[in-house]
Parts: sequence; C-alpha cells; structure tokens
Amino acid sequence: MSLDMSSSQKASDLISHARSVVEQAQHALNTSLSYIKSLCINESGRLSGSKLDEYQLVSYELAYSSAEIAAANTMCNYATQIREAKGDQDNAYLEEEIALMFCAEAVQNTRSRLSARQNEFGLSTEQFSTAFETDNTVKFCQEYQQTSKLVELGNFMLDQDGRTADYLLDEDKEIMRESFQRFASDVVMPKAEHIHRDDLMIPDEILKPLVEMGCFGLSIPEKYDGLLVDGKEDNLGMIVVTEELSRGSLAAAGSLITRPEILSRALLAGGTEEQKQHWLPKLAWAEPFCAVAITEPDFGSDVAGMKLKAEKVDGGWVLNGAKTWCTFGGKAGVLLTLARTNPEPGLGHKGLSMFLVEKPSSDGHEFRHELERGGVISGKAIPTIGYRGMHSFDVFFDNVFVPDSHLLGGEAGLGKGFYYTMAGFSGGRIQTAARANGVMQAAYEKAISYSKERKVFGQRLGNYQLTLVKLARMASLMTASRQFTYSVGRLMDEGKGQMEASLVKLFACKSSEWLTREAMQIHGGMGYAEESAVSRYWIDARVLSIFEGAEETLALKVIARSLIENAA
Amino acid sequence: MSLDMSSSQKASDLISHARSVVEQAQHALNTSLSYIKSLCINESGRLSGSKLDEYQLVSYELAYSSAEIAAANTMCNYATQIREAKGDQDNAYLEEEIALMFCAEAVQNTRSRLSARQNEFGLSTEQFSTAFETDNTVKFCQEYQQTSKLVELGNFMLDQDGRTADYLLDEDKEIMRESFQRFASDVVMPKAEHIHRDDLMIPDEILKPLVEMGCFGLSIPEKYDGLLVDGKEDNLGMIVVTEELSRGSLAAAGSLITRPEILSRALLAGGTEEQKQHWLPKLAWAEPFCAVAITEPDFGSDVAGMKLKAEKVDGGWVLNGAKTWCTFGGKAGVLLTLARTNPEPGLGHKGLSMFLVEKPSSDGHEFRHELERGGVISGKAIPTIGYRGMHSFDVFFDNVFVPDSHLLGGEAGLGKGFYYTMAGFSGGRIQTAARANGVMQAAYEKAISYSKERKVFGQRLGNYQLTLVKLARMASLMTASRQFTYSVGRLMDEGKGQMEASLVKLFACKSSEWLTREAMQIHGGMGYAEESAVSRYWIDARVLSIFEGAEETLALKVIARSLIENAA
Repeated sequence: MSLDMSSSQKASDLISHARSVVEQAQHALNTSLSYIKSLCINESGRLSGSKLDEYQLVSYELAYSSAEIAAANTMCNYATQIREAKGDQDNAYLEEEIALMFCAEAVQNTRSRLSARQNEFGLSTEQFSTAFETDNTVKFCQEYQQTSKLVELGNFMLDQDGRTADYLLDEDKEIMRESFQRFASDVVMPKAEHIHRDDLMIPDEILKPLVEMGCFGLSIPEKYDGLLVDGKEDNLGMIVVTEELSRGSLAAAGSLITRPEILSRALLAGGTEEQKQHWLPKLAWAEPFCAVAITEPDFGSDVAGMKLKAEKVDGGWVLNGAKTWCTFGGKAGVLLTLARTNPEPGLGHKGLSMFLVEKPSSDGHEFRHELERGGVISGKAIPTIGYRGMHSFDVFFDNVFVPDSHLLGGEAGLGKGFYYTMAGFSGGRIQTAARANGVMQAAYEKAISYSKERKVFGQRLGNYQLTLVKLARMASLMTASRQFTYSVGRLMDEGKGQMEASLVKLFACKSSEWLTREAMQIHGGMGYAEESAVSRYWIDARVLSIFEGAEETLALKVIARSLIENAA
Repeated sequence: MSLDMSSSQKASDLISHARSVVEQAQHALNTSLSYIKSLCINESGRLSGSKLDEYQLVSYELAYSSAEIAAANTMCNYATQIREAKGDQDNAYLEEEIALMFCAEAVQNTRSRLSARQNEFGLSTEQFSTAFETDNTVKFCQEYQQTSKLVELGNFMLDQDGRTADYLLDEDKEIMRESFQRFASDVVMPKAEHIHRDDLMIPDEILKPLVEMGCFGLSIPEKYDGLLVDGKEDNLGMIVVTEELSRGSLAAAGSLITRPEILSRALLAGGTEEQKQHWLPKLAWAEPFCAVAITEPDFGSDVAGMKLKAEKVDGGWVLNGAKTWCTFGGKAGVLLTLARTNPEPGLGHKGLSMFLVEKPSSDGHEFRHELERGGVISGKAIPTIGYRGMHSFDVFFDNVFVPDSHLLGGEAGLGKGFYYTMAGFSGGRIQTAARANGVMQAAYEKAISYSKERKVFGQRLGNYQLTLVKLARMASLMTASRQFTYSVGRLMDEGKGQMEASLVKLFACKSSEWLTREAMQIHGGMGYAEESAVSRYWIDARVLSIFEGAEETLALKVIARSLIENAA
C-alpha cells in the first residue's frame, strides 16, 4: 500500500518539512492569541469575558484554525508512527502522502482566514509573511495541493473499495473495531433506513446484542460489573466502538453509548459508594436503559441558568418543571436530572443538584406515567429531521417525588449538580468526534461505490478528475479527523486532553458536514432520494455541530477563551 | 436608510475603488482562462473536451470565481443605480455598504482559491501580486471585511425586521412582487410545513388562486391567452414571482412556474402554429397542468444519451421506456416527453424528438392509466428528503400511443428534440437562481426573528458579535444573489445572458446552502426540529445544486468550457 513519490526526497524529510510549515502557522496563531489576550485583560490582570465578546469573529477563526493546525500536527505524528510501524522503504506510504496533503490544506486554509483581516488578528505584514509566505511554506503548500497529487490519491482510494488509510490501532482495539464494524454492517445498516424513514425506536435486534457485547459498560469499572480495567480509563476503546456503530447509523446505534457514559462518569465522580454499587452494575447491562435530562427549553448550552425546581420534603425531594432534548427519554428507566435545589437568586450553578429519577420504560413517541412514589412524569418526542431512532423528548415533571437516596452524592452532593454535569459530559465531545468519523466513513464508502458504478457522459464517474479530487479530499479529511480523535482519546486516557477534545469535536463535526454534502453531490439526483443512504448521512451529520456543545459556544466560550487565557 | 460612514471618502469614489479592485481580480481570471485554453487547444485549433477534462479542478475553481466576480460587478452597478435613484447624499446608502462588503469578500475568496495552486492557474507571482497584493486591493479588502463594518450592518439589519436592501424594481414589478409576497405569507407559508412533513400534493387552496393570478401564463404571449406582451420576453417578471413564491415554499409554490415555462418555451421554439394555438392557451390556465419527462434513470444531465424509444406506427408513434425525476408528473395532464425516434447508433442527440403525451391527472404517490389511445402509462413518486409537494416520479411508458399531431414541430420536428429541450430549459437556470433567492429570504427572516427573540447566556442572541456577523454576511450574499439574478433577467429580456444565467445559478444555489445552514445554526437545537421552518429551508435548498444542471456539470461543461473557449 504505497504510492509512487514524485519527489526523490526521503519521506521522513518531507514530514520534517511539513512539521516546520505547520509550526510556522501555529506561531502565527500564537502571536494572534497573545494579541487578543492583551486587548481583553482587565485592570486586575484577568481575562474579561465581556471584552472577549468584542472579538468573537476573530476568536471563532482562531479556534477553528487552531483545530485544523492541531489536526495537522497529529497527522505529522501519525506519518512518523506509520513508518515506525511498517518499516523504512523508499516510497512514501499512503498515510504519509495523506498527511502531507492535509498539512498543506490546513496551512492554506489558516492563511486564507488570517489574511482576510490580518490587522484584526494583530499580525504585522512581516509576521504574516514569516508564517505563510516564505519559500519553504509556499513551495510546500503548492506541491501538496497539486491536482495531480489529489488525482493520484483519488485513484488509489477508488481501487481500495472504501478501505482507507491505516487506523493504526493496537491488536486489542483492532479486534474490537472489527467486531463492531461487522455488527454495524450486518445488523445496523440493513435496518437504519427503515428506522429513519418511519421514525421508529431502535429495535431489540440492535439493542440486545449491543447490551450483550458490553457496550453499555464501556465506561464502568470491572469492580462494578463493567468492562473497564479498574483504575484505568479507556477513552480510545469507547471512541473505536462509537465510530464503528456510527458508521452503521448515527441514530440507530452510534449514540447509544453516550448516555450510559454520562451517567457512569457522573456517578463515578459524585456518587456515594452505595449509589455506585447500586447503579453502575445495572447501567452496565442496560437494566434499565438511561437518559439525561439537563437541557431546559430556555437554556441550551447555558447550564447555569437551569430552572427545574426540587423542593425538600420528608424523605426526599419533589421535582417540578420541564426539560427538553432528553434523547432516549422514553426508553430509559432512569433519568439523570439536573434540578435547582436552592432557589436563592444569584447562586447560579451553585444552586443545582443532580438526581437519578426512576420511571417506567416505554417505546412510543409519548409517555405519561403516574409514579408509585408520587407525581407524574410525561414526555413527548420532538420530531426532528434526522438523528431518529432514540427520540428526543420534552419531559415534564409534575410533583415527581425522588427519595433522598437518589440525590447524587447524598447530602454532600447538594449544590454540586453543575460539577457532576461537567464530569458526566467530559467524554461527550470526543465521543461526538468519533460519531462524526463514523458517519464520514459511511458516506465515504457510498461515494466510492457510486463513483465506480455510475456512468455519466459515457464514462464512470470515478474517471473524472473532479470526482477523484473530491474522493482524495474526503480521504484526507476523514483520516485526519480519525487520527486526531484517536490521539485525543489516548491523551484523555492519561487524564489530559480536555481542550483537545473540544478542538477535535469542532473539527470533526464541520468536516462531516462537508464530506456528507460532497458524497451526496456525487450521487446526483439519487443523493436527494430517501432510499439513498447518503441523504440520511447528510441529515444526520448536521446535528453534530448543534449538540454536545453548539459550534459557536464551543469555539468561543470553551476553545478561544481557554487558548487566549493561556496565551503567552 | 443610511449607515454612517467611517470613511470620509465620497461613496461614489468608494464604488470606483471597488470597481478597480474587482477589475484586477477579473484580469487574473482572464489570464488564467487564456492559459488553460492554450493547454487545451488541439491541432486543429479547437478546444479539446478530453484535454479540458484534465483541468477539471482549476476549471471548477475558475467557474466559481467567475460567478462570484460577476456578482461583485453587478453589485457595483447596483450601488451606482441606488445613488441615481435615491439622489446624492453625504452618507453611504445601505446598499452601497453592502456592495463594498460583498466586493471585498468576493475578491478575497477568489484570491484564496487561486493562491492554493497559483502555478496550475498559470499565474506568475507578478501577475498574482498585481491582481491581489497591491496596496489598493489589500487596503480595500481589509477595510470592507472589518468586523466592525459587519457588526454595524448586522445591527442595522436586525432593526429592519427582515427587510433587506432595496430590490430596485420598477413600479410594475414592485406591485407584482408585493402581491405574490402577500400570497406567499398568507396562503403558502401556513400550509408549507404540513405539505412537507406529510409529503402531500400541493392543495387546491394554493393551486387555484395561482392559476387565477396568471402564474402559469407568465411565459405565454397574450395572443395565446398568456400574460406576456406579444413579441417580448419577461424574464424579470418570472424571476420576481418565482422568488416570492419560493419564499413561501420552494416545493409548495416556488417551482410551479418551472414546468409551464419549459413547455411554453419548447412550444414557442418548435411547435407548429396549430400546436401553439391548441396548447398554449390551455397551459396558460393550467388546463391541464403539465410536467416534463426528459431525464432517464441512466442519464442525468447527459441528454444526448437518452433511450426512451418511439416507433412509427400508422397515425402516430408508440413509446416504450422509462423516465425519472418527472416532477408533478402525477398531477400533470400532459408530459413533454423526449424520445428516440431514430434508433441509428451514433446519431446521439440528433435521433431525439419531442412529444406531448396526454394522460389523466391524479393526486397520489402512484398512478397507472390505461390510455384511450392505447398503451399504459404508470408512475411512482420517488420519496425525497425535501422539495416535497409536487412529487417527482419514475414514469413508465408501456406501448403508449401518441398521435402524429403530438410530435412537437410535426414532421419538421423530427430529430430536433435536443434543440427543443435546450429551448425549453433556457429559462431554467435563471429561474432556479430566483428560487434560491426566495429560500434565502425566508431563512434570513427566520434568522433575524430568532436572533431577536432568543436569549442565550443572559443576552439576546442578536447582541452577540458572531450572530451579527452572520446576519450581515447573509444580507450581503442574498442581496448580491438577488441583484445578480435580476440583472441577468434583464439581459435575457434583451435576448442575451445565457452564460450569465449559468453563473448566477451556480452562485445562488451554493449561497443558499450556506445561508440556510447558518440560519439553522442560529436556531440551535430548535433548528433541527421539524417544526422550525429553517430545518425545511435547509433541506429544500440542498436540491438546488443538484437539479437544473448539477453544480459540477454546470461549472465544467457549461461555464468553464464556454469561458475558456472564449478566452483571449
């Protein structure tokens, strides 16, 4: 699996070249981040949120460029690892070619963004030139964005039947990957269209085997009956499984792990030992299924403002209010519910606590349960254009009684709901990146197969240069997104990588929008038909930039804020 | 309606500045087009299609950049016309500010595209510099892409309740526009969601008034009972009506005019006087509705390869074969059908003729009619993700007898089917641009209203810089697309503008994808809900780059080919 190199340079030298080019771009970003920091520091030397809001456009562009350049860095490492793993040879490996192309495009994109308002980014002509206009950089970018290179890669990928660059996983993970890939192909894919078009609940034929395969216990330690080696994290495993299931269907399989993961993390972070022992083994084997009731109708990504009220009564709490976008809320037998236990105004997120609210499981688009313990919980699925299969509910709490034992962390957990939310969602971003990668892989496979089958103007689609260029860019973008995700997963396994998880979420989700759009375009009119899977991939991918941290919130409030705060 | 100018320069001087910057970009494009031409000329001095195929990527980029720069030129003219119409004043008019911003962005985008593979575009460093790196250009682009300018415009638009820049229509067209705008708001919009979600046929409450308003006779001369002043074209009128109806709904109103227009144009181009007198008055008042059966399952934009067979029999022809994507084919009482009347291989499009095939009208998703004259015609709607309301059918012709009188042009029309197809579709591209403009306007209005209503992190969405920037770019892109469309419509009324119609189709449709995506993003989670109109606008807009000349075919086979052929 190697491409002929047009250059006689050694591949490792080329990667060094790429590194130096990427480094220069990173340097420009750093300069700009420092500049914005200098404008937003208030008198006490701290970053002012309101001042930062005056620089949202440049902040957004810096966040996105940082994500792209971080991905480019990952690709350089990946290329190095490939050569280490596969041994030295004269020709470049496919993965090295992809890395070079990706770096060239990432730097070119960053250059374009910064050049549009160079002065606002605080870059002098000289600084900009040093970063992007040296012979070293210009030559590199021109060479690795050459049409001929893209065409060569496109042709190569076309002959691979949708097989892509090496995933570079160790043997354990590779076995895991293959088994979930097979499950996705054999079980999920044949059912996905029907589930989407008829807006059905995911059927037992998918749910049951996944429970048996241990999917719901991936983030639960062995001592609580889960699959996680005690005392270790396995983000990479969760990523690999999520990606493969999302290749089958984002909605009908790829998002099932999200909710037990959130609950497990929240329980591990804040639960009493008794709560852990009670809940974790149940969650690990989906007895019951679970869901998350955090978002409220008036508050999306803005957790601190939540209003659902919990009032203390004898032996427990009574909950009143509404939640929304509670995905899988019908099927779930327990809802992780964020509630305001202290109504004092001004407390903000410090007045919030977390409850485990039990309810009967049901399959339809609506439910209404009079609870044994008191109160009524009801829900109505919000019809959405895609991401169907789990149903996302508006949920109404009407005097719902929750015993003291179900307050997360017991009395010590009072006021810590926001913290537990953060702990629960800490894997959400990287997982969403993995979901995007799975959707991309599925769309990419369809783009490849259609390019081979379909004839236009007397030639198969895949003979045309523009098709080959699209396929090459898809392969490059998808590989970068996947490897970036894996690398962040590995970082997270070491207890690091929260910022990187945000970067890769931003990057992967936008990439999946572009890739699914192009895969659809390759299908022509058929791409717009419901029977073509690409139409569903395109619609499903669209949700990724909206949920788990909307693109803008993520870019501005999380990424840019932190990058600027930590700038020199 | 004027913005404060940050510059003390006179607005007319600024527009001159913009013109000179845009001209330089055009000059670079011309240089590049000539260069590609020099590479693709064969020995006989003619452009070689197969050589041109080796430059598809740069051809695509040149086509898109040409469209953007042509739009920028239009915006300069628009700014001049605004000042002429409204009189001189010290401050810049809103429309002038929008024009300046649009020009800056168009030049910046073109620069970015060309810089990625400058050598492949055949631009020397010096040529590139002259076009994009002079002080004149750099200063202009930086100044009019400034965040503060975008924010100022965004705020201004936010206060306008979705009202946009001046349409600059004459009184007649403005009255026409307002009446269809009202109809779209009052009658179409309230029904659009239901039609989409339940995939219904457009109801009589929409169809009947539109027939009465003369919609179906817009391209039919008065002497044939239509609304067109004899001997004149009125593309602009058709554009204005189409845009306003598409604002109501692309699928449930905005595309109704397309089919009678195609039939009228084909009949006017090729029909015998008897055929014109028989059919045109009927079509003008939708008695019957009509549809177009051109595309075949194996041939999308590739008309010359069509296979549906017409065999000569006594008194007529017998048709056998299949058509696809026959939109409105169920409701239609007559299908304009392209068939192969001469089976001789190698004749290509010269073996094709056009028939008017009568059939009963029906409302469902399927039909099957045994025809009085002989044969069976049947159809099945292809479920699509959007563009619902008219239903697009696979149509099967099983020994369908068509009398000689229904061969378009009579015996003289034999072999001219391809020519009549082209004549019929000559208005399709500009009309599709108008449809894109209508969808953009609708999405834009929702983006504005949601930005005013919704609060996030304690502030209304419209207070945030990033929202304002999005709204400003939406306003700028949409205004450019609309004015570009109008200007091409006026050109077409003078019998010119076919190339420009392709440029504006390419530009408007891609713009509508971006704009609807951003409008959706502004809505956060609600943007993904079916009850939010923006989710439908996003899905509907997606079809625009696929039909009426798929983006790639249009860019490569029509635009780039012709631009390169005509390059110096």
